[in-house]
Amino acid sequence: MAEGSDDIQALITLMGRLPGLGPRSARRIVLQLIRKRSGQMTQLAQLLDRVATNSRECLTCGNITDSDQCAICSDPRRDTGEICVVEDVADLWALERGNSFRGRYHVLGGTLSALDEIGPEDLGIPALLERIENQNVREVILALNATVDGQTTAHYIADILNDMGVAVTGLAHGVPIGGELDYLDDGTISAALNARRKL
Amino acid sequence: MAEGSDDIQALITLMGRLPGLGPRSARRIVLQLIRKRSGQMTQLAQLLDRVATNSRECLTCGNITDSDQCAICSDPRRDTGEICVVEDVADLWALERGNSFRGRYHVLGGTLSALDEIGPEDLGIPALLERIENQNVREVILALNATVDGQTTAHYIADILNDMGVAVTGLAHGVPIGGELDYLDDGTISAALNARRKL
Repeated sequence: MAEGSDDIQALITLMGRLPGLGPRSARRIVLQLIRKRSGQMTQLAQLLDRVATNSRECLTCGNITDSDQCAICSDPRRDTGEICVVEDVADLWALERGNSFRGRYHVLGGTLSALDEIGPEDLGIPALLERIENQNVREVILALNATVDGQTTAHYIADILNDMGVAVTGLAHGVPIGGELDYLDDGTISAALNARRKL
Repeated sequence: MAEGSDDIQALITLMGRLPGLGPRSARRIVLQLIRKRSGQMTQLAQLLDRVATNSRECLTCGNITDSDQCAICSDPRRDTGEICVVEDVADLWALERGNSFRGRYHVLGGTLSALDEIGPEDLGIPALLERIENQNVREVILALNATVDGQTTAHYIADILNDMGVAVTGLAHGVPIGGELDYLDDGTISAALNARRKL
């Protein structure tokens, strides 16, 4: 046993399974934590325990929160007439960091997939439709990833909503702010060219 | 507040300060943990708490352990006649993974540094000398890093031990196993050339 104790070894293994980490980076992290065991490490253990105990999904939108309704769904200043549909909570957080959307969200928790047998019910699409009917929603923004599954899901939802008479929009494709043309993929460049606008 | 709750945000900040992680990777890790909050996350919190509570330095060698003596110092099959001196616990673990040294260790916890005012007492060098005198040590291997501070510390210890009549050795420099000459720095290549051996 090279690494101190069984617990330390188990900790390194567990850490090494986190996304983006491996055995080497996990060892480095665990050693630094042990060096700061009375401060940083204890604090981290307590926070992890608290977040594990308190976290749950917002009953309305599926965002991660520590109460029945997330901060966004319980904020009266956020427009209930606009719902932005995202694949997962990471996307919701990313849009919130953008700080320009003032409506509400709906987290699908994945995309439709015939291969993985994920249907509309698994993604809470009936719940989304119910929400749209009951809350007088004017516009639904489908902010799904530009992958095949993401776009299939977007089309599926758009078809239903168009029949319901709700405005459906998608995020614009184009050159990222600060992006260099030379480094962009061909698909993005032609999308940006097709959607060119008058200056 | 984009990220769920104050606790989640504090957790992301704390995670993002670990070596090799930043805000983006910390967010990804925390989201994955929350997804597995009843399993992986709770387990991680418990392990961190246990390791933080139980970890301490081995009273003999300075290795991280959960008792007064580490597994190496309390293993009667490990040769007490050889002591390998390392800068920190990460180096000890690395040598143990190599699985070819069967003696004992001594962790300095740093290197001599005039700039940072780190003297021999701060590194427990008197304790090392006492250990060498009392335990009938035949050979001391100085496995310190090939940095200026590491080599200064090695020379300081070697001078004292030579006066005490103990054999002092250092790790060989040369081409790493599996290494390609083209990618090696000039210093390593000339060291390997100077220490060339008959085949």
